[in-house]
Amino acid sequence: MGYTVAVVGATGAVGAQMIKMLEESILPIDKVRFLASARSAGKILKFKGQDIVIEETTEASFDGVDIAIFSAGGSTSAKYAPYAVKAGAVVVDNTSYFRQDSKTPLVVPEVNAHALDRHNGIISCPNCSTIQMMLPLKAIADKWGIERVIVSTYQAVSGAGMGAILETQDQLRQVLNDGVDPKDLTANILPSGGDKKHYPIAFNALPQIDVFTDNDYTYEEMKMTKETKKILEDDSVKVSATCVRIPVLSAHSESVYIETKETVSIEEIKAAIAAFPGTVLEDDVAHQVYPQAVNAVGRKETFVGRVRKDLDVENGVHMWIVSDNLLKGAAWNSVQIAESLHERGLVRPTEELVYELK
Amino acid sequence: MGYTVAVVGATGAVGAQMIKMLEESILPIDKVRFLASARSAGKILKFKGQDIVIEETTEASFDGVDIAIFSAGGSTSAKYAPYAVKAGAVVVDNTSYFRQDSKTPLVVPEVNAHALDRHNGIISCPNCSTIQMMLPLKAIADKWGIERVIVSTYQAVSGAGMGAILETQDQLRQVLNDGVDPKDLTANILPSGGDKKHYPIAFNALPQIDVFTDNDYTYEEMKMTKETKKILEDDSVKVSATCVRIPVLSAHSESVYIETKETVSIEEIKAAIAAFPGTVLEDDVAHQVYPQAVNAVGRKETFVGRVRKDLDVENGVHMWIVSDNLLKGAAWNSVQIAESLHERGLVRPTEELVYELK
Repeated sequence: MGYTVAVVGATGAVGAQMIKMLEESILPIDKVRFLASARSAGKILKFKGQDIVIEETTEASFDGVDIAIFSAGGSTSAKYAPYAVKAGAVVVDNTSYFRQDSKTPLVVPEVNAHALDRHNGIISCPNCSTIQMMLPLKAIADKWGIERVIVSTYQAVSGAGMGAILETQDQLRQVLNDGVDPKDLTANILPSGGDKKHYPIAFNALPQIDVFTDNDYTYEEMKMTKETKKILEDDSVKVSATCVRIPVLSAHSESVYIETKETVSIEEIKAAIAAFPGTVLEDDVAHQVYPQAVNAVGRKETFVGRVRKDLDVENGVHMWIVSDNLLKGAAWNSVQIAESLHERGLVRPTEELVYELK
Repeated sequence: MGYTVAVVGATGAVGAQMIKMLEESILPIDKVRFLASARSAGKILKFKGQDIVIEETTEASFDGVDIAIFSAGGSTSAKYAPYAVKAGAVVVDNTSYFRQDSKTPLVVPEVNAHALDRHNGIISCPNCSTIQMMLPLKAIADKWGIERVIVSTYQAVSGAGMGAILETQDQLRQVLNDGVDPKDLTANILPSGGDKKHYPIAFNALPQIDVFTDNDYTYEEMKMTKETKKILEDDSVKVSATCVRIPVLSAHSESVYIETKETVSIEEIKAAIAAFPGTVLEDDVAHQVYPQAVNAVGRKETFVGRVRKDLDVENGVHMWIVSDNLLKGAAWNSVQIAESLHERGLVRPTEELVYELK
């Protein structure tokens, strides 16, 4: 007896990877249902060689669904995830909508799978830029404590969806093939589809991901701060981020500075990272070995390298963390949450609906 | 009565910008001479519409030269700069060779032009990634002191020369037009022409610029540390860098964290940066205004934005610093040094040759 798994937002950049991750998953799946907007309804997507007709997402879509994975934007999750819970499904939500909700666990399975035990029908998958950083941070936090984190990201455009990928490729072709000056390119999506102005990404680095909050940090930057505290279950850990989009299609890179509470050697930190599940230490500078975005694409692991002591601060360590933002940063972490729920016997209807129906 | 100005390395990516900066310069120039390797000798370059025949660089090239600007690699400077000094010229050296030499001033004119007064015939132009950071750092250091700096760079490929520009464009065309997977691209130059292995830069971020030193930092990273201390004349300032190459052709971006010695408001820091010569504050996040690489190309100024308090550390401030690495990072800063020498009456033969002839 396997599960019926619904994917909401099956047609997007993350959706395509979600289907692939489900095909490779250890979950016992009897049936999949692909849900999307009315515009995509009736189209066909493949699952393990079978044709699956896309259905429009409605309040009544979730009858008989055991696991519903949402990746269609915050407003879709806000509206339909509670109906999925009401219908008896467990929701894995890949949007930011429920992440800071106290009833909702925010989970990176290698880091805090135990938080799944207190779910109320919805589990949030953290933001891509947070997830990959959490693995080495947890490896360090458990042994030596973390005082503070300063992170600068080098994020791929696929995090902004299929439209951003196409926009980037089109802009690069205009510059390379037609000689357009990068600053004269027109842009319609990046840096943030939800903001007013759009800027070229070809041959550029844009220090804005998502819109700005009232403290002059972006929502993306504040997600890294708030989600890290929630996942580590430690509000005292200091995290400040600078989130930057660069002309890379997939895989985020991060330059991360960590100050530990206790003094520790670089060898001990490297050993802890290498031993941490889901994490690969790629660090041999004598042979120019370090993580690279192009090598991380299509891989489920998080790659860590350039691990070295700060030049002056005894407890300071710098590292370079790379992972496929569509896989560990989204689709794989979501499917991994579903697998963890299954392994823990937590794929079951909740007794009481604690989320608001809209 | 004007100067005879020689440019050594006139045919490179920086050389082309050097010629342009000299054409626009306030220096009284009677004559220019373009020197390069034997391979380029006899070719023609334009200066203010005139044909200039490129000459091979030799020990005897500098007779009658008042100002010699070197940008042809460290070994060329090591070999020929002392001969230029011996012949009575003042050398502005754009390579790293003399930068840490105690006899040699290391100058960003807006920051420490006074250091020119004690020159011995050679003045070093700092590394591109250092220069642009120095302007806001000096604006802050003078008023509130600087305790520490953590910088992550987003560097353009033009810093590695014309070959790196062509390699990047070629790789991007292979991916976009021929469907080559970025990780299967062949590379011959980046991350460092002087190192053994080469990796693709198209759709990638390479956490290596220059070769590695024995402390696991790269030379590029150590240049930022050592040059900052020398230019600020403060060995106590802590600087740790992570230098990363991204697929941008020109203009470096930097994510910089600064901890001041004294507590200061963001408004005061912004005002100090806006008032600093050569620096433009581009910081209005409510209207999505922040520095961008594509807008900095061809500009001589350094652009600073995203200035904001660290979320936890009282004296911590983050900012985003962008400048054209070929201009303020190299050619313009070098010509600016020559202009400062002229204004200070320092374009004159040195009395004693303190550099070693090789």
